[in-house]
Amino acid sequence: MAKELKNFTKRSDNYSQWYNELVVKADLAEQSAVRGCMVIKPYGYAIWEKMQAELDRMFKETGHQNAYFPLLIPKSFLSREADHVEGFAKECAVVTHYRLKVDPENGGVVVDPAARLEEEYIIRPTSETIIWNTYRNWINSYRDLPILVNQWANVFRWEMRTRMFLRTAEFLWQEGHTAHATKEEAMEEAIRMVNVYANFAENFMAVPVIKGTKSANERFAGALDTYTIEAMMQDGKALQSGTSHFLGQNFAKAFDVKFVNKENKEEYVWATSWGVSTRLMGALIMTHSDDNGLVLPPKLAPIQVVIVPIFKSAEDLEKIRTTLDPVITEMRRRGIRVKFDDADNKRPGFKFADYEVKGVPVRLAIGARDIENGTVEIMRRDTLEKESVPFVGIEDRIEHELEDIQTALFERARKFRDSKIIKVDTYEEFKEKIEEGGFILAHWDGSTETEEKIKEETKATIRCIPFDGDKTPGKCMVTGKPSAQRVIFARSY
Amino acid sequence: MAKELKNFTKRSDNYSQWYNELVVKADLAEQSAVRGCMVIKPYGYAIWEKMQAELDRMFKETGHQNAYFPLLIPKSFLSREADHVEGFAKECAVVTHYRLKVDPENGGVVVDPAARLEEEYIIRPTSETIIWNTYRNWINSYRDLPILVNQWANVFRWEMRTRMFLRTAEFLWQEGHTAHATKEEAMEEAIRMVNVYANFAENFMAVPVIKGTKSANERFAGALDTYTIEAMMQDGKALQSGTSHFLGQNFAKAFDVKFVNKENKEEYVWATSWGVSTRLMGALIMTHSDDNGLVLPPKLAPIQVVIVPIFKSAEDLEKIRTTLDPVITEMRRRGIRVKFDDADNKRPGFKFADYEVKGVPVRLAIGARDIENGTVEIMRRDTLEKESVPFVGIEDRIEHELEDIQTALFERARKFRDSKIIKVDTYEEFKEKIEEGGFILAHWDGSTETEEKIKEETKATIRCIPFDGDKTPGKCMVTGKPSAQRVIFARSY
Repeated sequence: MAKELKNFTKRSDNYSQWYNELVVKADLAEQSAVRGCMVIKPYGYAIWEKMQAELDRMFKETGHQNAYFPLLIPKSFLSREADHVEGFAKECAVVTHYRLKVDPENGGVVVDPAARLEEEYIIRPTSETIIWNTYRNWINSYRDLPILVNQWANVFRWEMRTRMFLRTAEFLWQEGHTAHATKEEAMEEAIRMVNVYANFAENFMAVPVIKGTKSANERFAGALDTYTIEAMMQDGKALQSGTSHFLGQNFAKAFDVKFVNKENKEEYVWATSWGVSTRLMGALIMTHSDDNGLVLPPKLAPIQVVIVPIFKSAEDLEKIRTTLDPVITEMRRRGIRVKFDDADNKRPGFKFADYEVKGVPVRLAIGARDIENGTVEIMRRDTLEKESVPFVGIEDRIEHELEDIQTALFERARKFRDSKIIKVDTYEEFKEKIEEGGFILAHWDGSTETEEKIKEETKATIRCIPFDGDKTPGKCMVTGKPSAQRVIFARSY
Repeated sequence: MAKELKNFTKRSDNYSQWYNELVVKADLAEQSAVRGCMVIKPYGYAIWEKMQAELDRMFKETGHQNAYFPLLIPKSFLSREADHVEGFAKECAVVTHYRLKVDPENGGVVVDPAARLEEEYIIRPTSETIIWNTYRNWINSYRDLPILVNQWANVFRWEMRTRMFLRTAEFLWQEGHTAHATKEEAMEEAIRMVNVYANFAENFMAVPVIKGTKSANERFAGALDTYTIEAMMQDGKALQSGTSHFLGQNFAKAFDVKFVNKENKEEYVWATSWGVSTRLMGALIMTHSDDNGLVLPPKLAPIQVVIVPIFKSAEDLEKIRTTLDPVITEMRRRGIRVKFDDADNKRPGFKFADYEVKGVPVRLAIGARDIENGTVEIMRRDTLEKESVPFVGIEDRIEHELEDIQTALFERARKFRDSKIIKVDTYEEFKEKIEEGGFILAHWDGSTETEEKIKEETKATIRCIPFDGDKTPGKCMVTGKPSAQRVIFARSY
């Protein structure tokens, strides 16, 4: 049973299969009976809840409030913004009827043809349209601005090729939708939020990211600018992990949202939107995990420390429990999430394997012999190193280890990511290097034509024009035309 | 402007209109462009978030974990449980297509007929079917039980007559779905959760409730027993505020969910489900609010104390701010949610009216004169009483007032509710008294026939067979047949 749990495909053999197996074996999620939709299992959902709590705190600290808008969007709303409809029409779930009836011939239920809707609804793929239609009534004057609203919600995009967490038809996310009196303020907001995402990714998920601007071709449907955080997965592919959009006045114009400014003149309102989703779970998994299963950064681990008692008799267990009780109480007082697993229907070996697969950062094992010796065995999930340490002061040791694991995971991921960034100057070299994966910094002439040629020939896309780093101009590796700065290419999820 | 804010329909003139106006004026919610769906505005959503946080804590303390299941349900799943399909088929939103395309004739987008689904999906009206289809793979042995899972989600029931929070096509809720090895354990769970709901209603919402069992006729579609908490609104109508269902083995049989018990025999699994929704917002409003607007119990108020400075000059404001700063810091340290509203584009009178309409429990007003005198004006929203009190020790006073308001609101509501409970022995008297509203305790013969006759003739339904109180048998007020105990009738939302 313990063996079976850890019987994984190796990452080096088939990364994609390893990922799918891990998601299921670590009890994070599973395929559902609905095509392309997953069930997020309690353990996976607990990690998502931790992410939500931190993000929600960060949004509130930057002045945002939550609200809730309808799941369904009138079909006609989608057509109002030309790029937007183009981006989403092909993957919409369409509601056409509002009633079922008993099937007189075959039993069961059928759609009641008499209950056809006059105008169909789509299940929101994103909520710009319904929200800007609402904002029209909220905004009259500059005094009503800014509006800083976020929504936690489910959205639906009928994707044909899905993978759990990375690309599912339904997914959970948050979508911020803000309205501003000036272009500058909206642009600032869009940048602020991509920085919030980067801060969250690096300091909570321990996932290093590169912040930058998307090329025109890769922008959100309806945006004037899209900012992104891009992470590097262990297989050399990039994962877009969060985006923030400067929408200009596009949606204000499409939904006629105007305000009277301080000079008493009417103007269209400026907009941003920004979102992260359950896709972050994919980033978390593919940044830290190994051939033994999930590895979780302590800040997002539902269980930070698991204690497995090794006992043969009820007396042994009782002795262990008595010794540990004050330690557990003290750890909880310090805010450490501890689980004492005294289940007697599973062997210690099975528990070890199970918590390893689930990525619990620290494991303690303690038996009768340990109690006599005043020791306890501590294991770190990130290094898999075991050590017998004095029982006295174990709370401090654990606190230290948890902090150290959080830092170590980030550092390891950063080193790996940095080792995967290379500069390339010729298209020849580019084609060769892209096969190895990683982020390639190369010069590009800024045209969609060149970008698409590269994509077609190499499957690499421009992940972003990075905010930071080398800004030296050069010549496009493909056309030789001038390039303002190197941009980042990669194959991606 | 301040007058306009408070220019409400009086409750005594038109209760239903008062409610609708209050929901909008207190900035809780508004109608959306989607028929029957509302937009929950930031202030209303902040109250819902407080409810969610407390409930979620209570669920976790009783051993439950959150998970997430698909929004869409294959149409055929609904037919598996006969009562269930009967209960929900008539109000289902049906997804029939997965793509839109550009309309070649008129522009805009139309449903792409080529993208018709083989089997339609419905948007979940509740999730028993998809969840029990999933549980089949989670459960093999008694060791896998119990499963104690909750889901926070949106659901959709295509209601024809909707009212904000009380009955909307889409609403937000939580649905617990548990699986057990024995009938007794499942029944205990269903009772445990209706008790959790009653505890939450009374101790957080300050809404007194009567716990009881539903009559067969009023049960959830697919349940063997439904337990409910029933609250009394100011207009004498009852509001069902939360329900918990003992589902027996109905869904286990419909979805073939069996387990091997300790005696190594196969058995069907026992089930419960339980839910509360944004409808609780309606209960909150219609229990406490008055002709001046919303009244909130402190435990659920997004802002517990608002401080309005009265100033003519920037110096005055600065003086007030300096005096208040340490007090605000101390209140926040104590966990009190304080807002210092120093906006200079609104007059104090407008602010007073606005926070009154929004139901903020305590208001402080402080001017330059107060600073000189060492006083501050305090107002309680529940009594609307103002008092000038010493500034020193104001934190303690506020802490005390908040506790007192929470208790006072519950006591007031309980007294009102108790005054609305009467015993009636003849159907004649029943027909007369039901016009005055309230809960009527009367004897009933236990038959659906009698129940439906009463409903038809008086619009009153059996709210519940109460757990507590008088259990003396008697004779049915309509048929004269034996009755085990008095049950509670009322007209309801």
